[in-house]
Amino acid sequence: MSDRTDAGTNRPQPTTDPNAAALSRRQLLARSGLASAALLVTAGSGVAGAGPIGSDPAGAATPSETPINTPVVPFFGTHQAGIVTPEQSRMVFAAYDLTLGDRAALAGLLAQWTRAAEELTAGREISGPSGPFLPPSDTGEALGLGPSRLTLTVGFGSTMFDGRFQLQHRRPAALVDLPQFAGDDLDPSLTGGDVCIQACADDPQVAFHAVHNLTRTAEGAATLRYLEVGFGRTAASAVGQSTPRNLLGFHDGTDNLVAADQQAMDRFVWVGSETDQPWMVGGTYLVARRIRIHLEAWGRSTLEDQQNTIGRVKASGAPLGGTSERDPVDLDAVGDYGQSVIPESAHIRVAAPGSNDGQALLRRGYSFADGMDPESGELDAGLYFICFQKDPRNQFIPIQRRLTENDALSQYLLPTGGGIFACPPGPAPGRTWGQALF
Amino acid sequence: MSDRTDAGTNRPQPTTDPNAAALSRRQLLARSGLASAALLVTAGSGVAGAGPIGSDPAGAATPSETPINTPVVPFFGTHQAGIVTPEQSRMVFAAYDLTLGDRAALAGLLAQWTRAAEELTAGREISGPSGPFLPPSDTGEALGLGPSRLTLTVGFGSTMFDGRFQLQHRRPAALVDLPQFAGDDLDPSLTGGDVCIQACADDPQVAFHAVHNLTRTAEGAATLRYLEVGFGRTAASAVGQSTPRNLLGFHDGTDNLVAADQQAMDRFVWVGSETDQPWMVGGTYLVARRIRIHLEAWGRSTLEDQQNTIGRVKASGAPLGGTSERDPVDLDAVGDYGQSVIPESAHIRVAAPGSNDGQALLRRGYSFADGMDPESGELDAGLYFICFQKDPRNQFIPIQRRLTENDALSQYLLPTGGGIFACPPGPAPGRTWGQALF
Repeated sequence: MSDRTDAGTNRPQPTTDPNAAALSRRQLLARSGLASAALLVTAGSGVAGAGPIGSDPAGAATPSETPINTPVVPFFGTHQAGIVTPEQSRMVFAAYDLTLGDRAALAGLLAQWTRAAEELTAGREISGPSGPFLPPSDTGEALGLGPSRLTLTVGFGSTMFDGRFQLQHRRPAALVDLPQFAGDDLDPSLTGGDVCIQACADDPQVAFHAVHNLTRTAEGAATLRYLEVGFGRTAASAVGQSTPRNLLGFHDGTDNLVAADQQAMDRFVWVGSETDQPWMVGGTYLVARRIRIHLEAWGRSTLEDQQNTIGRVKASGAPLGGTSERDPVDLDAVGDYGQSVIPESAHIRVAAPGSNDGQALLRRGYSFADGMDPESGELDAGLYFICFQKDPRNQFIPIQRRLTENDALSQYLLPTGGGIFACPPGPAPGRTWGQALF
Repeated sequence: MSDRTDAGTNRPQPTTDPNAAALSRRQLLARSGLASAALLVTAGSGVAGAGPIGSDPAGAATPSETPINTPVVPFFGTHQAGIVTPEQSRMVFAAYDLTLGDRAALAGLLAQWTRAAEELTAGREISGPSGPFLPPSDTGEALGLGPSRLTLTVGFGSTMFDGRFQLQHRRPAALVDLPQFAGDDLDPSLTGGDVCIQACADDPQVAFHAVHNLTRTAEGAATLRYLEVGFGRTAASAVGQSTPRNLLGFHDGTDNLVAADQQAMDRFVWVGSETDQPWMVGGTYLVARRIRIHLEAWGRSTLEDQQNTIGRVKASGAPLGGTSERDPVDLDAVGDYGQSVIPESAHIRVAAPGSNDGQALLRRGYSFADGMDPESGELDAGLYFICFQKDPRNQFIPIQRRLTENDALSQYLLPTGGGIFACPPGPAPGRTWGQALF
């Protein structure tokens, strides 16, 4: 799994070489010690020379003095990056409607996107024709920010297989449409999409820049359907020890699958030979849910209510009856009066694999805060839930059905958008996202 | 100005003491070496004991292993924090409508907010009655994240002086209503407000948590009118050498006032004895503008167009005709054919103090990305422009009028919201925000 982990821990120092003034971002990368990582993933890309802005003849380029201090996550590999990659602290999730005409054009868009994604994740500018009388091929706002562990993960919605691109026979059986769950209030403009791109990075401007430039690359071929900006906890990925807190104020993800556990990933996440669509082997299914949390109602409930709703102690994250976060969850424990210590409707009980035929998901969501809901005057904030799985028919859908029926937390949640997407395997060098589809 | 700078550079290591398991966030702070800073700013606050979640008897608190590695920005002082404080990388800007009944209730809200802001900026939980059968006094999502250089800055809108609170005679003459500028398309739900709070921090969850809890503190007294989440450049504050790039891809803020220049701050930012309202001495006026950037149109313009529009080289940030970012701007330079090297309509020419009777502003804005504009299908992203000044009648308003009339950049911008607010001076320990008003 070395191809899914960070390229290295070499952290170059800021360059103070005055000759650096004329270097492009890419040259800076090469100089500063990331050369091997950058070159490794860019072999065969055919990009030479300075970037489109750096090559501007009207003035010498002066990349910022900012150290490019964040490693590259390799783009190519058996699986796409951004799934088992240790979670970055920021996300931009974008969904697109395809407006292009045919199958060949779709293959062309995916090839263009793949080339761009390779450049972006390596911390380079989007290459292309450049000069004063052309629009810059890269929009420029990430210049000097470094790769920042950017990952770009593509997924295909069921509507991509609706016949416009002669791909009906390529739709995997597992790429079902999500049912309407009790309590859903899905806004169509925040739901679905022919294609999604999940951009994760440790710098929000790097993630935004990636989606901005992929959107621009797709002009005339795809239009943005929705875009969500998420944040996690800044310190989490740096320390790597504790689980972040969600906007409910509780530790989240304590019982999540461990992405480094190859066996669990093979069992629960990666599509294998059981699929009806060989192009999906090594891929996975992404389910996104934009879940607004009724933070005001939650904030008015008592500490005991909150803890019984989740099934954990708010401060420590320990399961009720336990003393520390990593204590095993004892669903059978009974209290002095014969009551369950972890209530029957507690979120962790209803979501537990033991309550769901042993099924589990790899969760990788982010908090969001989108301002105020004008109808209620309440915060429009919550969890942009994202999970990955081998087959949503056995994983997300039955688990979510059980949750909406039994989970005490449901009353505080309002799902307003999201989608289900088939994420193809990672491309090999020289190949493109979803190439086996065509 | 030592009261406006960071409390120190001592960065405690993560605690590995197993006895730390039962410590509250506040106790952790005290242990970890920030005690002196924390105690300095909390003297007289009367808060004792563990926090409301940490004191939960149902289980031992386990603060996360995350190092509390970010210093405290002192809350009390001659001026409010968050104005000349070195810019943090994240912002949440909130505006409120007051729903309370009278002047005394308003004074009470400001006192409550001040107490809460003091706790939040010190990295502590909101204190209050606690126990299993009460709602937690703090919502909890910042537990373990540290103070993260959080600043909270309050401002009063002109509508606060409309008579509901018998404050008509306290309205400063400089707190004018902003005129409608050419090109404005202000959404009333994103504009104005009786009170604003600017929360800045290096962690978005810390900034969100602060606004979340201040909103909760104000329940029954004020409702949220709008809330904007902003991001800057992660690396900027850490390195402190280069200016960040905005979403236009250009360096932004090269010619900004230097916040550490006390003389410039006294001349352009801090209200002095010239004011008609003595309660504003040491305060300043905040103007916010939510400026959507037509990124798609901008991205289709040529590099030369973009550079002529701004007046700078995109890669280096050098003024046209110069070679590096800090080169002086020569507005009189002429080219081979007698044309101005920096075009007449270039943004940096029109915005320059030399074009505005020597007037200048302290800018402190953030980029935003709020998804997609459903009407156009374009990105709803841009700049949440925030500036501070001594008198908007001589600074923001005439400068902005000139910009909307002459600035080539205007055609790419769509102001959709914002407001003008009188920020009182910083409170002394034991006093509250705006106390001199009452």
